[in-house]
Amino acid sequence: MQNPIAIIAGEPNSISSEIIFKAWRLRKKYKLKNFIVIGSVKLLTSQKNNLKIKIPLEVVEKDFNTNNLKKNKLFILNVNYKQNKAFEKISTKSNKYIFNCFREAINLIKMNKISGIINCPVAKETLFKNRNSGITEYLGKRFTTKGQEVMLIYNKNLSVSPLTTHIPFKTISRKIKKKDIISKLKIINYFYRKKLKKKPKIAILGLNPHSHTTLKFSEEKKIILPAIKKLNKLSISVVGPLSPDTSFMFFKKNKIDVIFGMYHDQVLTPFKALYKFDAINITLGLPFIRVSPDHGTAKNIAGKNIANPKSLIESIKFFNSINI
Amino acid sequence: MQNPIAIIAGEPNSISSEIIFKAWRLRKKYKLKNFIVIGSVKLLTSQKNNLKIKIPLEVVEKDFNTNNLKKNKLFILNVNYKQNKAFEKISTKSNKYIFNCFREAINLIKMNKISGIINCPVAKETLFKNRNSGITEYLGKRFTTKGQEVMLIYNKNLSVSPLTTHIPFKTISRKIKKKDIISKLKIINYFYRKKLKKKPKIAILGLNPHSHTTLKFSEEKKIILPAIKKLNKLSISVVGPLSPDTSFMFFKKNKIDVIFGMYHDQVLTPFKALYKFDAINITLGLPFIRVSPDHGTAKNIAGKNIANPKSLIESIKFFNSINI
Repeated sequence: MQNPIAIIAGEPNSISSEIIFKAWRLRKKYKLKNFIVIGSVKLLTSQKNNLKIKIPLEVVEKDFNTNNLKKNKLFILNVNYKQNKAFEKISTKSNKYIFNCFREAINLIKMNKISGIINCPVAKETLFKNRNSGITEYLGKRFTTKGQEVMLIYNKNLSVSPLTTHIPFKTISRKIKKKDIISKLKIINYFYRKKLKKKPKIAILGLNPHSHTTLKFSEEKKIILPAIKKLNKLSISVVGPLSPDTSFMFFKKNKIDVIFGMYHDQVLTPFKALYKFDAINITLGLPFIRVSPDHGTAKNIAGKNIANPKSLIESIKFFNSINI
Repeated sequence: MQNPIAIIAGEPNSISSEIIFKAWRLRKKYKLKNFIVIGSVKLLTSQKNNLKIKIPLEVVEKDFNTNNLKKNKLFILNVNYKQNKAFEKISTKSNKYIFNCFREAINLIKMNKISGIINCPVAKETLFKNRNSGITEYLGKRFTTKGQEVMLIYNKNLSVSPLTTHIPFKTISRKIKKKDIISKLKIINYFYRKKLKKKPKIAILGLNPHSHTTLKFSEEKKIILPAIKKLNKLSISVVGPLSPDTSFMFFKKNKIDVIFGMYHDQVLTPFKALYKFDAINITLGLPFIRVSPDHGTAKNIAGKNIANPKSLIESIKFFNSINI
């Protein structure tokens, strides 16, 4: 039997547990891959009761036997945490717990017990207070990829990926490097070919308004064009640099699979304008695949039993579809 | 009789003349406001013949009498220019001609002969070679608004406007100033109230990924939030700073009329992802209103008689709808 995937419960005072419970109930309908949850049994039990959702939880040990997971239960690897009420206000109180959950997941990866990680949403502002960071960068650091982790927002119509991620805007132009463009696009190309069995067509964006390919000292001319030439020599299909403002108008006609931008909002803003949360967030460049639903904590509806598990289900289905 | 508007023929080797001819033919169907064309009679005649479009052209003098424009002719204020063929390759050869056309239009504004300007597309890369500029900035300089001209991409569902326009990306963060945000939003608010008879609801975007309102030294906290507070005190309806990546997801639900961003691609890229070229480009903050179809020269189809005059017609109709 294949190793399960692990779902990290994420921010406790969010819709995380609710969408996990709902996804588990729909596991047969969507033929979802086996999964275990990493989180506090105490908290999950109290949230389950609070939400009036009836499903059987069962604790597993760290050295669980995959073959014993077949039973009709939602398996949980316990990480200690408690709070007074089932749902409280989001605060830094849960930070340590969330990182402990990630640590357990990473251990399971190292022990070859799981085949990938999904993490439910965290509250970036609380978890990475006063730092420009996110889970993508956190995992990048843990696995010493030296900034070579790749954020890919995946949707079957179009994926987008930014060269730089959660960094202060004013530092972006200093971080546009030929070697990073090449290395990240090699990772994306490899992922498409190996896991999705497809040679992707990639479009790369310029940095400046209307892409200054004619200016002598533009980043487009000095950095991006040489990177494209190098990638084309490696038989990686990359076109560009496109003028950013019109770049999301013609990708269907031009059969583009991936739009690679220079910074977070350059590609995420138009992508979400078109597809809203109909996407999953994949981290590539790590020794395992990490996926996250592409939405936030939805704290305003936490505990109300009205959250939609669609993006989490899509995240799990993604593991069904790839060759792991 | 009201003053006509002037249409500047723009880049000669583009679809400009074709869409002007087509718009003129449809002037009755769409009840378009009177207009005159500023351009080379010789060139327009040769392009008309080349395109096999039959419409009567008539030359007007600079001191034309508006009441004499009622006849069934397309009126042209001549600006000298010639090229060998009806359509050639776009080059810097036409730069002087294009600026001369703008000069004539500005003179007509000063003489109170016209009520506004529409300019057909120009080739930015050729016209403003080695400079980061566009018509918006050119007119801003001519009318000494000291960078206070406002680019508004207008569509009846949503308009967008960037604080900074065609400047090198690496200089953007230095140009985020509280006084400019306030002055530009005052201009936009005034335009909506006076010309469109509507109190607009404006959303303003942050600069950094996920808008760093909690960071001590973020532009959001230091510059954008204080600008919003000041504008709200002036009874201008502004919300934000929104996280840029999700900002184009909820504008309908929140009844936002204008999304104001910090830089060109932050708002133009998602806008064009949603509405493509279904928009007009308005310059505010000048002593007159300047409008442009929101598309390029379409040089690949110039001279083929297949261009669509929709955006030019929308630009003319816009003058019908406002209170000038």
